[in-house]
Amino acid sequence: MVLTFGEVLLRLTPPELQRIKQAHSFQIDFGGAEANTAVSLAQFGIPVKHITKLPNHEIGLSCKSELMKYGVDTSGIVMDESNHARMGLYFYEKGASQRPSQVIYDRADSSIAKAQETDFNWDVILNGVSWFHFTGITPAISDNLSNILLTALQKAKEKGITISCDLNYRAKLWSKEKAKEVMTSYMPYIDILFANTGSIYDVFSIGTAYYGKSDDVETAIAVAKQVKDTFETKVIAMTMRKTISASVNEWSALLYDGNCYIAKKYKMDIVDRIGGGDSFAAGYIYSAYKKYTMQQTVEFATAASCLKHSIQGDFNLVSVEEVMALVNGDGNGNIKR
Amino acid sequence: MVLTFGEVLLRLTPPELQRIKQAHSFQIDFGGAEANTAVSLAQFGIPVKHITKLPNHEIGLSCKSELMKYGVDTSGIVMDESNHARMGLYFYEKGASQRPSQVIYDRADSSIAKAQETDFNWDVILNGVSWFHFTGITPAISDNLSNILLTALQKAKEKGITISCDLNYRAKLWSKEKAKEVMTSYMPYIDILFANTGSIYDVFSIGTAYYGKSDDVETAIAVAKQVKDTFETKVIAMTMRKTISASVNEWSALLYDGNCYIAKKYKMDIVDRIGGGDSFAAGYIYSAYKKYTMQQTVEFATAASCLKHSIQGDFNLVSVEEVMALVNGDGNGNIKR
Amino acid sequence: MVLTFGEVLLRLTPPELQRIKQAHSFQIDFGGAEANTAVSLAQFGIPVKHITKLPNHEIGLSCKSELMKYGVDTSGIVMDESNHARMGLYFYEKGASQRPSQVIYDRADSSIAKAQETDFNWDVILNGVSWFHFTGITPAISDNLSNILLTALQKAKEKGITISCDLNYRAKLWSKEKAKEVMTSYMPYIDILFANTGSIYDVFSIGTAYYGKSDDVETAIAVAKQVKDTFETKVIAMTMRKTISASVNEWSALLYDGNCYIAKKYKMDIVDRIGGGDSFAAGYIYSAYKKYTMQQTVEFATAASCLKHSIQGDFNLVSVEEVMALVNGDGNGNIKR
Amino acid sequence: MVLTFGEVLLRLTPPELQRIKQAHSFQIDFGGAEANTAVSLAQFGIPVKHITKLPNHEIGLSCKSELMKYGVDTSGIVMDESNHARMGLYFYEKGASQRPSQVIYDRADSSIAKAQETDFNWDVILNGVSWFHFTGITPAISDNLSNILLTALQKAKEKGITISCDLNYRAKLWSKEKAKEVMTSYMPYIDILFANTGSIYDVFSIGTAYYGKSDDVETAIAVAKQVKDTFETKVIAMTMRKTISASVNEWSALLYDGNCYIAKKYKMDIVDRIGGGDSFAAGYIYSAYKKYTMQQTVEFATAASCLKHSIQGDFNLVSVEEVMALVNGDGNGNIKR
Amino acid sequence: MVLTFGEVLLRLTPPELQRIKQAHSFQIDFGGAEANTAVSLAQFGIPVKHITKLPNHEIGLSCKSELMKYGVDTSGIVMDESNHARMGLYFYEKGASQRPSQVIYDRADSSIAKAQETDFNWDVILNGVSWFHFTGITPAISDNLSNILLTALQKAKEKGITISCDLNYRAKLWSKEKAKEVMTSYMPYIDILFANTGSIYDVFSIGTAYYGKSDDVETAIAVAKQVKDTFETKVIAMTMRKTISASVNEWSALLYDGNCYIAKKYKMDIVDRIGGGDSFAAGYIYSAYKKYTMQQTVEFATAASCLKHSIQGDFNLVSVEEVMALVNGDGNGNIKR
Amino acid sequence: MVLTFGEVLLRLTPPELQRIKQAHSFQIDFGGAEANTAVSLAQFGIPVKHITKLPNHEIGLSCKSELMKYGVDTSGIVMDESNHARMGLYFYEKGASQRPSQVIYDRADSSIAKAQETDFNWDVILNGVSWFHFTGITPAISDNLSNILLTALQKAKEKGITISCDLNYRAKLWSKEKAKEVMTSYMPYIDILFANTGSIYDVFSIGTAYYGKSDDVETAIAVAKQVKDTFETKVIAMTMRKTISASVNEWSALLYDGNCYIAKKYKMDIVDRIGGGDSFAAGYIYSAYKKYTMQQTVEFATAASCLKHSIQGDFNLVSVEEVMALVNGDGNGNIKR
Repeated sequence: MVLTFGEVLLRLTPPELQRIKQAHSFQIDFGGAEANTAVSLAQFGIPVKHITKLPNHEIGLSCKSELMKYGVDTSGIVMDESNHARMGLYFYEKGASQRPSQVIYDRADSSIAKAQETDFNWDVILNGVSWFHFTGITPAISDNLSNILLTALQKAKEKGITISCDLNYRAKLWSKEKAKEVMTSYMPYIDILFANTGSIYDVFSIGTAYYGKSDDVETAIAVAKQVKDTFETKVIAMTMRKTISASVNEWSALLYDGNCYIAKKYKMDIVDRIGGGDSFAAGYIYSAYKKYTMQQTVEFATAASCLKHSIQGDFNLVSVEEVMALVNGDGNGNIKR
Repeated sequence: MVLTFGEVLLRLTPPELQRIKQAHSFQIDFGGAEANTAVSLAQFGIPVKHITKLPNHEIGLSCKSELMKYGVDTSGIVMDESNHARMGLYFYEKGASQRPSQVIYDRADSSIAKAQETDFNWDVILNGVSWFHFTGITPAISDNLSNILLTALQKAKEKGITISCDLNYRAKLWSKEKAKEVMTSYMPYIDILFANTGSIYDVFSIGTAYYGKSDDVETAIAVAKQVKDTFETKVIAMTMRKTISASVNEWSALLYDGNCYIAKKYKMDIVDRIGGGDSFAAGYIYSAYKKYTMQQTVEFATAASCLKHSIQGDFNLVSVEEVMALVNGDGNGNIKR
Repeated sequence: MVLTFGEVLLRLTPPELQRIKQAHSFQIDFGGAEANTAVSLAQFGIPVKHITKLPNHEIGLSCKSELMKYGVDTSGIVMDESNHARMGLYFYEKGASQRPSQVIYDRADSSIAKAQETDFNWDVILNGVSWFHFTGITPAISDNLSNILLTALQKAKEKGITISCDLNYRAKLWSKEKAKEVMTSYMPYIDILFANTGSIYDVFSIGTAYYGKSDDVETAIAVAKQVKDTFETKVIAMTMRKTISASVNEWSALLYDGNCYIAKKYKMDIVDRIGGGDSFAAGYIYSAYKKYTMQQTVEFATAASCLKHSIQGDFNLVSVEEVMALVNGDGNGNIKR
Repeated sequence: MVLTFGEVLLRLTPPELQRIKQAHSFQIDFGGAEANTAVSLAQFGIPVKHITKLPNHEIGLSCKSELMKYGVDTSGIVMDESNHARMGLYFYEKGASQRPSQVIYDRADSSIAKAQETDFNWDVILNGVSWFHFTGITPAISDNLSNILLTALQKAKEKGITISCDLNYRAKLWSKEKAKEVMTSYMPYIDILFANTGSIYDVFSIGTAYYGKSDDVETAIAVAKQVKDTFETKVIAMTMRKTISASVNEWSALLYDGNCYIAKKYKMDIVDRIGGGDSFAAGYIYSAYKKYTMQQTVEFATAASCLKHSIQGDFNLVSVEEVMALVNGDGNGNIKR
Repeated sequence: MVLTFGEVLLRLTPPELQRIKQAHSFQIDFGGAEANTAVSLAQFGIPVKHITKLPNHEIGLSCKSELMKYGVDTSGIVMDESNHARMGLYFYEKGASQRPSQVIYDRADSSIAKAQETDFNWDVILNGVSWFHFTGITPAISDNLSNILLTALQKAKEKGITISCDLNYRAKLWSKEKAKEVMTSYMPYIDILFANTGSIYDVFSIGTAYYGKSDDVETAIAVAKQVKDTFETKVIAMTMRKTISASVNEWSALLYDGNCYIAKKYKMDIVDRIGGGDSFAAGYIYSAYKKYTMQQTVEFATAASCLKHSIQGDFNLVSVEEVMALVNGDGNGNIKR
Repeated sequence: MVLTFGEVLLRLTPPELQRIKQAHSFQIDFGGAEANTAVSLAQFGIPVKHITKLPNHEIGLSCKSELMKYGVDTSGIVMDESNHARMGLYFYEKGASQRPSQVIYDRADSSIAKAQETDFNWDVILNGVSWFHFTGITPAISDNLSNILLTALQKAKEKGITISCDLNYRAKLWSKEKAKEVMTSYMPYIDILFANTGSIYDVFSIGTAYYGKSDDVETAIAVAKQVKDTFETKVIAMTMRKTISASVNEWSALLYDGNCYIAKKYKMDIVDRIGGGDSFAAGYIYSAYKKYTMQQTVEFATAASCLKHSIQGDFNLVSVEEVMALVNGDGNGNIKR
């Protein structure tokens, strides 16, 4: 069983391509980097449970129900009975063409941000778990969480659980200095690091000269190599996005484990790009469970996350068969009938 | 010009009569007790400005725009430039028949809750103001606000401005003890007190025996008399609601200034009951500006607030002519064509 | 075949119970007094064609399509090829409880208002027609139409066609004096007059003392008798509505042909009251085709129009079977399964 | 753990109060008599699994997801891999006022209707089960199901599992003669029978004279007594509905176990009456688990099912606390804030 | 008059680009290969009637109404009064970018599939008909239909009616062997065959080597030539689609009557590609009625069907003028004002 | 303060990409060439008031409210109290791919078209105004307006106010001859002329040979030069649009003041192209207030109007910061978080 740990947010999005100022209703989604990975894994048929803390009111319960709907084990979610418990939320304005997407976060003082060490009994939680996945957002949310996470990583390591982390730097949550310090302390526990040239530069000050070349393969390889050399991480997985506009992106990825494995590149009409990286992680973890080769893994994970961009919301609601159809190139977009 | 002062919240409501758990979108409204009164006064043609503090991001600006749309002067609203500024919000689940409406508040640490004395220059703000209206919610939000409000009341009193207050006790915001202490300290400044038997009992422990008889005229008169005797308030305005179900209510009101003036009673099919009391206050203030008799005032304010219950959202979007049609009984519901 | 003649309007309605000021979209309906009757007859299986003039652009064509959808013969509709041709439209704000419904008409200079005598070849149009139905709205729209209608009535009379008229006074379209003059000139052609005490008083100044008692049976009978005595009309059909609120009405009707036939009274939760009278006329005409007795006729027409009030839009989309179920009292509202 | 067994249908409903002919979209719900009971029990915190057979395509999987969302154990649902597998569906047109609701079923040849004995290993399924609930719809769907059900009942009886059945006669699925024969053969297994005077008359020809008096207490008691005398069933639970109109119903219930326990009667503004009886069964089963007295049971089950009528869709999404608030009469419909 | 014969389905589509699993409502459309052609012809002003069999309930009647709305003569549609009559339906999930569209059919045992020879009196139906159009879907639905169609073809041939067929192979309905046998038996009756390289290979095993080159002109010509040589069909019309992604396609066509006529190629942003081929057939038939040259015909039909891809639903709601504007190249996409 | 003068229309748009014939609701927007410029300026923080005449009913008031919402000073708008007052409206069908957008205007006899000289006291209106902006639509609406505008221009010139005009020829409103005569008479008053090669050719018969080359820079420069030479206008601002399809356009602009300043060219996925030119004018005026260089001006105005094409409705709801991000090229479409 895979275990994911992290915040889940209520996402509020104006319908179609309206700006927030024009909106008279918001579409409701739930999402969070680690929960997104969990949902994608559940669609692939991998048992997965998500650990977080949610307010015990209708919004918190709706969030839990949504995870249950998509097959994630929510039995370990801690419900916050306190009086003014809240969950974090964000407003997402989808961009178009030259107008970029925008996000307004309102996530302070959420139940998970204020969670205590005593909320989580890691010996119980980690029972039966063979993979632990988290992202750099979790420790950024609060010092509490940062400490809780360290405890979890230590326990997981002791139990021989594979650990993966998506670097995911968020400037609105912590400084580069703080991020560097904390993430560096986590690196010894991490077997697989998901990242891109931007986040690696932001967190580890690695790759200065290359910053901004977000889709340049040579740059990505060089950075991955330097990270591996620095931290002796088993695998560095780098996604490469070229933002042609808010409506069109190019997307690829590579894995570096000493050797380098590069995926096919996709040009995508964007439906919703939130959760792209999270679905890549899910594709990787699924491939690892299936003992795919590294090249198969990078193709599967890239195709899976390519498909995510065509799906509304945070969650990558695609099956293994659908990913495989794209990988194998018979996903020619024709209607099946 | 009338001045209103208090929090404005983002309201999120499932469409039609869905429960929150079923909802996939929320309707967007903005509202707050004092702002609701301001909007209603603007519809009546009374110049009115609303004072609050809002985050300087798209949600805060949308709120300001919505007040501007309905003609409220927003030039005095303080925009919060701080990094994690937020505005309060609440989720509103509309009830039906035997299923009561529900509210989940998420209003802690909002820009207005964290406002400072220095945010408001009352000498400037009160320039040209002849009426100051607030509710018991404002001081309940934070000690900051409670102190700021006291300053404002003192300044307003000095300038001979008429002051009205809607008692509006909110158990989730403060204790009865705290409410009693603070509201008692405000009473000397208040010329007109809007309340009902429930809020008076909660805040002032007046009328014990009558508690719960929310629509009993004799009870309301007795309580109003006791409040007037205690605080020497000029006018006590009591609304009287009988909740037959979430779909049907009865509604009336009375004024007590030594004499008692009782309005016609209305039986209402409820579209949205939020803001009922706030629209009553607006009806009263309008009537005062028009120098209506006390009986005309109670009829106008009751009819105005009766109409509010037929309108979606917090705001009472009715004109003087529409209220008058109901008061005069030619509002027979026939289509005008 | 029944022939109906008159304006069709584009109706724009805010969704649910929103006020126009709150609306961000309008629901689209098409309707008009005579066209509404035509659609209802088509649902009852009676061949019916509607004659009007519509602009030959997408809105006019959409209107024609909507009539075709519901089985009305539109082959006689004249399409206006002129440059700035328009169709009339109106904004309809649905009321609730004490808040009345409102209508804003924008119908001047429409294709039908500017129609010419030469647009309609009545000898061709009336071929195969056995019943001609119109309302008092048609002559009120323009002098052109008033004259065209007179020509049609003369032709129809010559051919022995039964003629019915719904009095339908519209104060925004013409004065009482003008209405009285024109409608009086039409009365010799009319076999069945649909009306109520209000419209009869407005147009013919008959029944002064009774004005306003819109649901009083004795009043209605007295007025019907006086109309019959004055104009020697074969049948006077009087609908009787009591507007308890915008949400609840009572509804009944009577026929007077010398004898008086009174229908069962219904108390209705209103979904949409536009087209109530028009559907009564359709119920009457259907009954006449089926050679129902006068008592059967008044029951059928009243039940049919009662059901209209439960249906969104102008059109009474009910079958004969559904009306009969209500007439026969086994329409107990239980789900059939 | 409670086990429910039966068909789940895709329900397609026009938005608001539109007729099917007017609709341009359908709201999607899933429901079925036994699944509705399961969902309600899950909201009450009772472990419950639902057994059915669903097509292994996106619609079948959506149905399964919806049950998972609301906490029902779906691990026992059999997925139909066959080529043209389908699930039953129905179109539901919500009535209003005098216009009754309508249902069009399209449920033939569904995966569950064509299920085979070998699809269900009852020894495994019934493991850990203490209550088995089904309705008269299940055997009516197909002879296959009727036989499968008999096997299940026999197995359940052997294991000492409590068995309840809601009689639920559906004329469109089988004849009264067939129903009588099959249901009579089941009666020895049934501990608690949920029914009303209509279904008892339809299935068992008991209570002829009383037929139609759907809300008469004396009638219901007499019928219940006769059923108990005939079949020696432990408890007969009778719901009593008076359909004032499609918009307003009265609702009550009684239990008969030799003694008679009658619940408070509720007058309800109807939001959605589908699933009313199913939620009553859930209320009863919950009460039995909580060892409520018979009077407490009938009050809880009646209040629970009263609340169902205020909720869109088939499922009774209410908590124990909400039911209790109504039972205890402090559910006065006031907003909690 | 053109006659089209075939199934009409209820189509249920999630809004916007949602996956079925995410959807809470379905948009309603009606469509079917032959009916789509009929609607397009009606928009072009060609008299056309569609023959099918529909259940006589609200869904069947809604389907009929929709065809009436768009001007198709529905007087020959047979209404199925049987108890469990149903119409076929399908769920359509619109793809985007790399995610292909998906279709789930639920069309077994529909009224048309179970239709009998006696349902259709072809002598009456074919009266006044000069063109008969059908597709390979009709005989695939059931053996009944396959036989009924053969009768119709024989009758039509006798009367000298032009016959066209769109090959339209559907693997979910019948095997390639069955298709080959039946379609081969029809070929002698067919004057114009609409097809593409894929369907010709699937049905006639012609063009093996070329299979998959769906947009290669040389391939298409070679295949067309071989079909013409084999069956001596007057005209082979080949559409050529290149599926760049679910969002972008290229589209062209050619006619082969011994000579070859090739249309301009269009690159299309896809709104809805269902009905693309059906609208090509309508464009061809219209051109034939207008006696266009073969080159004019292929340009008109290709432009018409290009426009279809920009329109939601199955129906090509464009006028002759709109097609001509595209053909003539002044359809530069500028707003006309 | 900037003053804009001209008609505001109610715009009715089918949702998503539906054709009018398919629509069952219209989205509501308000817009008009000059009002669009006003709203954009208000978003940029420039004080601006819009002058027009609107009917004093709910639709007119809604229009006024919408302008207030976006910060435009509406205190000078004249409300039309007359009986059949109406505002102009138009139906807008958004195109896609090869299907062009369509507009149906219904703007005759609006309150503004029938406005009188006495409605506007220009001495009062122009008080505090430093810039006057109008378009060629205003004089085209009616002779009244054409004369009123001339008065305004004379007054503005006297007061030394900068005057800008967008040529905006509308063939449906007046002939080229009339346009030439009137616009030529206005040219002496105009300091900055916004136009494109098409409108200049239509109105002034300048640039014949170049007509149609709407995005050719050399052509645009030559035309601009000729206009400047002819009328001695200070600045000619030419937008250049290439309509690749209804879904994709290219967009650029140049300024000519003797020298020529050319902006970066943008390729845009179109969300809504109405108001593109109006937002360019706003960008120019803002730049002038900020004393930008000519090159900065053309870049700012082009980027601003490029962003407009990504926003639903007529109004360019973007901030200065957002425009600057695009100008400075760090608007790379990445989500900010």
